[in-house]
Amino acid sequence: MRYLLKNGTVVSGEKSMKADVLTDGEKILAVGEKLPEDGANVIDVTGKLLFPGFIDGHTHLDLDVAGTVTADDFETGTKAALLGGTTMVVDYASQDKGGHTLKEGLEKWHKKADGKCSCDYSFHMSIVEWNEETEKEIQDMIDAGITSFKLYMTYPAMMVGDGDIYKIIKKLNKEGCFAGVHCENAEVIDALSQEAKAAGRLGPENHPLVRPDTMEAEAVHRLLVIAEAAGAPVMIVHLTNRKAYQEVMAARARGQIVYVETCPHYLLLDDSKYSLPDFEGARYVCAPPLRKKEDQDCLWKALANGQIQTVATDHCSFTLKQRALGKDDFTKIPGGLPGIQTRGSLLYTYGVRMGRISQEQMCSLLCENPAKLYGVYPRKGVLAPGSDADIVIFDPEKESSISAKTHACNTDNTPFEGFALHGDIDSVFLRGTLCVSGGRLLREKQGTYIHRDKNSFQF
Amino acid sequence: MRYLLKNGTVVSGEKSMKADVLTDGEKILAVGEKLPEDGANVIDVTGKLLFPGFIDGHTHLDLDVAGTVTADDFETGTKAALLGGTTMVVDYASQDKGGHTLKEGLEKWHKKADGKCSCDYSFHMSIVEWNEETEKEIQDMIDAGITSFKLYMTYPAMMVGDGDIYKIIKKLNKEGCFAGVHCENAEVIDALSQEAKAAGRLGPENHPLVRPDTMEAEAVHRLLVIAEAAGAPVMIVHLTNRKAYQEVMAARARGQIVYVETCPHYLLLDDSKYSLPDFEGARYVCAPPLRKKEDQDCLWKALANGQIQTVATDHCSFTLKQRALGKDDFTKIPGGLPGIQTRGSLLYTYGVRMGRISQEQMCSLLCENPAKLYGVYPRKGVLAPGSDADIVIFDPEKESSISAKTHACNTDNTPFEGFALHGDIDSVFLRGTLCVSGGRLLREKQGTYIHRDKNSFQF
Amino acid sequence: MRYLLKNGTVVSGEKSMKADVLTDGEKILAVGEKLPEDGANVIDVTGKLLFPGFIDGHTHLDLDVAGTVTADDFETGTKAALLGGTTMVVDYASQDKGGHTLKEGLEKWHKKADGKCSCDYSFHMSIVEWNEETEKEIQDMIDAGITSFKLYMTYPAMMVGDGDIYKIIKKLNKEGCFAGVHCENAEVIDALSQEAKAAGRLGPENHPLVRPDTMEAEAVHRLLVIAEAAGAPVMIVHLTNRKAYQEVMAARARGQIVYVETCPHYLLLDDSKYSLPDFEGARYVCAPPLRKKEDQDCLWKALANGQIQTVATDHCSFTLKQRALGKDDFTKIPGGLPGIQTRGSLLYTYGVRMGRISQEQMCSLLCENPAKLYGVYPRKGVLAPGSDADIVIFDPEKESSISAKTHACNTDNTPFEGFALHGDIDSVFLRGTLCVSGGRLLREKQGTYIHRDKNSFQF
Amino acid sequence: MRYLLKNGTVVSGEKSMKADVLTDGEKILAVGEKLPEDGANVIDVTGKLLFPGFIDGHTHLDLDVAGTVTADDFETGTKAALLGGTTMVVDYASQDKGGHTLKEGLEKWHKKADGKCSCDYSFHMSIVEWNEETEKEIQDMIDAGITSFKLYMTYPAMMVGDGDIYKIIKKLNKEGCFAGVHCENAEVIDALSQEAKAAGRLGPENHPLVRPDTMEAEAVHRLLVIAEAAGAPVMIVHLTNRKAYQEVMAARARGQIVYVETCPHYLLLDDSKYSLPDFEGARYVCAPPLRKKEDQDCLWKALANGQIQTVATDHCSFTLKQRALGKDDFTKIPGGLPGIQTRGSLLYTYGVRMGRISQEQMCSLLCENPAKLYGVYPRKGVLAPGSDADIVIFDPEKESSISAKTHACNTDNTPFEGFALHGDIDSVFLRGTLCVSGGRLLREKQGTYIHRDKNSFQF
Ligand SMILES: [Zn+2]
Ligand SMILES: [Zn+2]
Ligand SMILES: [Zn+2]
Ligand SMILES: [Zn+2]
Ligand SMILES: [Zn+2]
Ligand SMILES: [Zn+2]
Ligand SMILES: [Zn+2]
Ligand SMILES: [Zn+2]
Repeated sequence: MRYLLKNGTVVSGEKSMKADVLTDGEKILAVGEKLPEDGANVIDVTGKLLFPGFIDGHTHLDLDVAGTVTADDFETGTKAALLGGTTMVVDYASQDKGGHTLKEGLEKWHKKADGKCSCDYSFHMSIVEWNEETEKEIQDMIDAGITSFKLYMTYPAMMVGDGDIYKIIKKLNKEGCFAGVHCENAEVIDALSQEAKAAGRLGPENHPLVRPDTMEAEAVHRLLVIAEAAGAPVMIVHLTNRKAYQEVMAARARGQIVYVETCPHYLLLDDSKYSLPDFEGARYVCAPPLRKKEDQDCLWKALANGQIQTVATDHCSFTLKQRALGKDDFTKIPGGLPGIQTRGSLLYTYGVRMGRISQEQMCSLLCENPAKLYGVYPRKGVLAPGSDADIVIFDPEKESSISAKTHACNTDNTPFEGFALHGDIDSVFLRGTLCVSGGRLLREKQGTYIHRDKNSFQF
Repeated sequence: MRYLLKNGTVVSGEKSMKADVLTDGEKILAVGEKLPEDGANVIDVTGKLLFPGFIDGHTHLDLDVAGTVTADDFETGTKAALLGGTTMVVDYASQDKGGHTLKEGLEKWHKKADGKCSCDYSFHMSIVEWNEETEKEIQDMIDAGITSFKLYMTYPAMMVGDGDIYKIIKKLNKEGCFAGVHCENAEVIDALSQEAKAAGRLGPENHPLVRPDTMEAEAVHRLLVIAEAAGAPVMIVHLTNRKAYQEVMAARARGQIVYVETCPHYLLLDDSKYSLPDFEGARYVCAPPLRKKEDQDCLWKALANGQIQTVATDHCSFTLKQRALGKDDFTKIPGGLPGIQTRGSLLYTYGVRMGRISQEQMCSLLCENPAKLYGVYPRKGVLAPGSDADIVIFDPEKESSISAKTHACNTDNTPFEGFALHGDIDSVFLRGTLCVSGGRLLREKQGTYIHRDKNSFQF
Repeated sequence: MRYLLKNGTVVSGEKSMKADVLTDGEKILAVGEKLPEDGANVIDVTGKLLFPGFIDGHTHLDLDVAGTVTADDFETGTKAALLGGTTMVVDYASQDKGGHTLKEGLEKWHKKADGKCSCDYSFHMSIVEWNEETEKEIQDMIDAGITSFKLYMTYPAMMVGDGDIYKIIKKLNKEGCFAGVHCENAEVIDALSQEAKAAGRLGPENHPLVRPDTMEAEAVHRLLVIAEAAGAPVMIVHLTNRKAYQEVMAARARGQIVYVETCPHYLLLDDSKYSLPDFEGARYVCAPPLRKKEDQDCLWKALANGQIQTVATDHCSFTLKQRALGKDDFTKIPGGLPGIQTRGSLLYTYGVRMGRISQEQMCSLLCENPAKLYGVYPRKGVLAPGSDADIVIFDPEKESSISAKTHACNTDNTPFEGFALHGDIDSVFLRGTLCVSGGRLLREKQGTYIHRDKNSFQF
Repeated sequence: MRYLLKNGTVVSGEKSMKADVLTDGEKILAVGEKLPEDGANVIDVTGKLLFPGFIDGHTHLDLDVAGTVTADDFETGTKAALLGGTTMVVDYASQDKGGHTLKEGLEKWHKKADGKCSCDYSFHMSIVEWNEETEKEIQDMIDAGITSFKLYMTYPAMMVGDGDIYKIIKKLNKEGCFAGVHCENAEVIDALSQEAKAAGRLGPENHPLVRPDTMEAEAVHRLLVIAEAAGAPVMIVHLTNRKAYQEVMAARARGQIVYVETCPHYLLLDDSKYSLPDFEGARYVCAPPLRKKEDQDCLWKALANGQIQTVATDHCSFTLKQRALGKDDFTKIPGGLPGIQTRGSLLYTYGVRMGRISQEQMCSLLCENPAKLYGVYPRKGVLAPGSDADIVIFDPEKESSISAKTHACNTDNTPFEGFALHGDIDSVFLRGTLCVSGGRLLREKQGTYIHRDKNSFQF
């Protein structure tokens, strides 16, 4: 099947240009002016922006958390993703502690995902134990198309110590790979939590107090000192605040390569939410927590400055009923926010429309940069001849608002409830197949596992 | 005339790809695989890299300096530029102090350049006096295609005070323009020079001592504090050292937009040169001066980190005889270095080949970024359909060495004398015309004045 | 005449101790327990703190400012000083621009002060022009007992350029002296003022906007870079804000010696005052202006941390009528605040009583440190045998409040109007003479000019 | 017994003055001019400096380390101390891991020390496990005169995690106490050590490489972030380098109270020692290791700037035979350096004589500040009426050199072997008893346990 998308504006990280896009089968055949129709399905996309399919490099689907399981699995999650313009997710597979292998983790995640995905998918691999065996498995992972990894500086079930971080990132760098790292000081957060609980402070308004920005920034600082010693690049996932950002900038000023990811909720929501009455604050519990308005400003400016490489969702959804597990103890609220569907339209509405970033920067953040970082560029991340025909037809004038009542996620809540959108996904092609049209899902479970190459990102 | 460049590797800031390039008249018609020859002159560029023509955003041709005139004028300078792969220069035109207008400056520079250039050219405008009249002229300059400006924080004939800097950059930002700024603390440098001379320290080895890195960093800091107050972006031209770089990074961490330029001599030479015997140190006198090896490291890492946007030459050449004006007083040595011809091959040999930067980053630094910053993108700076057919056929295996005996500049010295090159310019197209072939100039004075649009650079 | 002050608490920078103080003539004879009365006038000071007489290192008495003259001259000012426990002021004498000498300045100030002072006095000398002649005069000043100097980075009538600053502080350091520097970026402040006025923003609420903290911090940074080049210590007078403080700390971390002074109004008042209705904001106009509450916090913590060496008043008073000169243009409001009388009681009430600093630190800040910095230690600044019997009998329990109606300054306004005091000056000895008793002035014009030695302060 | 020390120069942190000192029994009776002899033993100390007895706040006597025991126990160590002018040591007692109490630790140390000491002594208590029981014991310790504590961020047998650090320092602050902390990142150092050993790098030259300055600075940074969260002051013991120092300065600039200690070996020796041939580098193994010359410069300047509060020895001595335990594996070399005897003379010779610090600052560093920090001021740390008659008669002109052959430590090596001294201890009084005279020990084992009060140090 061929499609000719006519009269649209093709967006890349470099520029936007009036051009037509011609697809053939799963691929883009040509991008240019006045392309010949011969036999193609012609779609007039006048007034629309054509983005490469968005890539979401940070999701948690079908994940066991705090004694429950995320509301979205790969089936519901990737449907929502695709409706939101995301044609590929990179979810976090994980090794288990206790002598388990990376391979077991990978198999487990394949079982969760295979056959259920409506967009393309791959996995990062979380390393939670490090020994000679694990070290050998790195090459197996690469062979299996897993070229990016994850480390946790918090969460007992996941965290690795500073010494292992040193060894792991050094090894990964040797193989041309890198790790994204969740940076928070686990022990101090634990001490602060105990302190809160001992004092009878049990509501969600305590959540940001026991996970302060300083303890994220401390972990970022420590990680980057270790990374300098190891001579290895790292990614800071879900960076939330100014102090942590300044640690990144200091490391770059020393010459280090540091990649940074942030998320829409850190750009658009602040910690006053945790003080909402009637346990409503629980809807916003995630780690790291929402921060201050001045932190949002900092992050937006960092996006404009090209200092943050990608905006991912950290999608990790729970129902209100699940949230209620922490009714009497905020530390038991399962943490994570849904967002897999709303990333592109939020970034457009609150970023591009408000003049904080350009649509080309939006393309870099959602498409080009993650494609490069996660080794799928130029197969994905760009609208160019030979690339996968993953195409978002974006209507910059469509107005709507976000609601848990209408979104496709399997949850009854969204932190962006009521957020007005000016600009939204109209249609989505996944490898040449029109899967979303007029905001409705036409075809599901077309996603395939993507064998990834190594990071090709260059600043 | 059509050309089909076959089997080369087309380099952009994003990626390198095997593709053919087809030109038609002054423009690129197509970039792709298996383009039809029909009627085109076919050139086999197997094994070659195809870069967009390099853009040199910092030259001083035919300039009065210190009672003499630069050895290169627009005729000799642009020939050398073209031989070095540079298809466009942006030279510094300047207002004169004493009630003169920007327009007078522009006319003067047109007289110097028009009809003599072998590559395309434009001008930045140096503002050395600011009043209501000058403010009104900004629009005239923009109308004349001059969209970038220059300010000096040193040199009595050129410098403007902090208050004027504030006013000027605020006005420029309002018009979508920006200024590049020469940052050194004029007064303290003057005091240090007097001190040296009073102490009988008169040789070139004193040059770096009276213009220390701290006085460049101080000026960068001051400029960026002023820029923050004005809410305006600025460019630091010819950044040389770690301390100054850290000031830039601190400003970016605060959210400011700062562009940075450096030059090959700051990347490759250090201040030990000034202590060469027999007045040989004089050959390296430029301002700011060469710095330390650790500063070079810092700059290379900043290039790799994407924190420096462009590498220009600050070409400003003098003969040894001219240098001798400062035989008895180093402050009288006319300052500036030739480099207009050797930028690309040096950056390739010492940057790309040594693994410090990639060839895509080289393309960003020499082509894409200056094209955007100086408002000629995508007309220039990229090999894409519709763009000017300014093409560098770069031979990555050609070995040679630099010498004043063989370069095309009108000077008997080069600071890079004896530098080995591994990779060099083979041929150059200027707007579709083959002007350099096999390293030899075929056609000269084909350059035209380029009317520039405004800055479209995005981080 | 001998006095025996019995049963008090003698405060020094090191400790507080119960001890008696015995004076004989102008000097302290002994400090200890159970001193023999023989013939001395015994004063029971049970429950009182005995401080060395306070030294105010920053006053402007009888000064021409903005076309008017300060409300307080040496007669009224030093009476108020003495009532406030200050037994010595160091006022700013100044050279005039236009070929005038330091000596002329000194003579002028002696004329203003001699015979009129109720407390001891000396002068700093402001250098506003620098040439070989001035350089030679430095020794003359030292011979005349003037060992500290002042430089202005703002105010056209006073300011010296960066090059002169370099030369002056280098020379001063060579002679064992140093300069206090008023740090603000004159030109940018001027540009901001013009901008405000051009926009019709003419009220006092604009005063802090055109003199932002960033422009003070910039000047501090610049000064300290110059001081590092000169290898010379400097003092930052009237430091007001966190950004400027961080510049100081950065210089100290590089190993530089930097002295810092702040004033009570920067510790206790914030810039919301400038927005008071009915031109009331004019009462608070001073330069640098009042800052934010977070700046106050920073300064208090710096006091606790020993990072600020002295708290002086920058006393420079005007009547409301004088203030009204700027009724239609805030830049014409004569700038400066009265404070010469209230420094000690404010620092005690809001510092010591509130636990921000200790009474020993108060003693360091008001007595010991300025005595050392200004070369009168241990003659002054400490209650020890052989020292001048300048003694403040401080009643820590006396409660009152500040009002222009009751203060001894020659002005009808004080920025501290209505401030409650808990702790106040009871009595004051000036060189062995009881001049203030029960808060009332017994003897006036007993002050003598103090010939000062060089700085002996050690961190 | 009374002594009258006549014609000396009495040094305090504030000033030096010609004065006589009269002792009576264990105490100082008077300090002043022309004190009456009546019955006192008169000693003419013309030309000598009189310091308060030095206090060494960091020693390890009779300590089990790495399977061996320090060469010096309390008997030999305190003899050497006293000969070096130190009249009081505060040694590190320690809790044991595995459910042991602080009380057990204290008893153990009393057994080691009681009855053997030639100078006065006390203990800090190292907390290596934290639970409710330990928390309760804090008050017991205070009651026993132990008011300062120690935490280790390295060494498995000693280290506590970040969460416990938070809890402990918060509790200590609540009680008016604080902890000194050994700051190094244990895990990364371990990883680096394993890496070195796996690569067959086994000699002492690897010692500084596996314990880099960055890993000390990281731990300092982390500690200070935790301290800020806890609102608690801390002391950095044995600070060695510029990066770590800058972390301290940054915390102070944020308003935190941080005390810093360094040691003579970090001021005077650099890491080139570790590369000495024939295993000689082993003589210098200590943790943190010796650093670079630029770090020494930084520390000296910090002393001059008042930013380091005390210089202690970290005396921890081993024989060459003990060192040889690490002959084949540098990580097995018992770490620590002897220095208990040479601190004062080194600081005088290389600090005061070389103009880096003043003798008053030396007095602050060795006497006054540790006395205040460790709660024995003004009983000790100052020559004043009522204070203990701990007096060092220091001969500023005595010339000698350091050698293991002549020192009183129980080791056959000193890192200062061959260091010339210009200025040395002549005689020492311990609580009124002349114990050292003409450099020879007259009386031993006169030391008593000192019950300490809480920290009274003020910046
Ligand atoms: Zn996470
Ligand atoms: Zn996550
Ligand atoms: Zn320049
Ligand atoms: Zn230039
Ligand atoms: Zn001032
Ligand atoms: Zn003043
Ligand atoms: Zn230690
Ligand atoms: Zn130790």
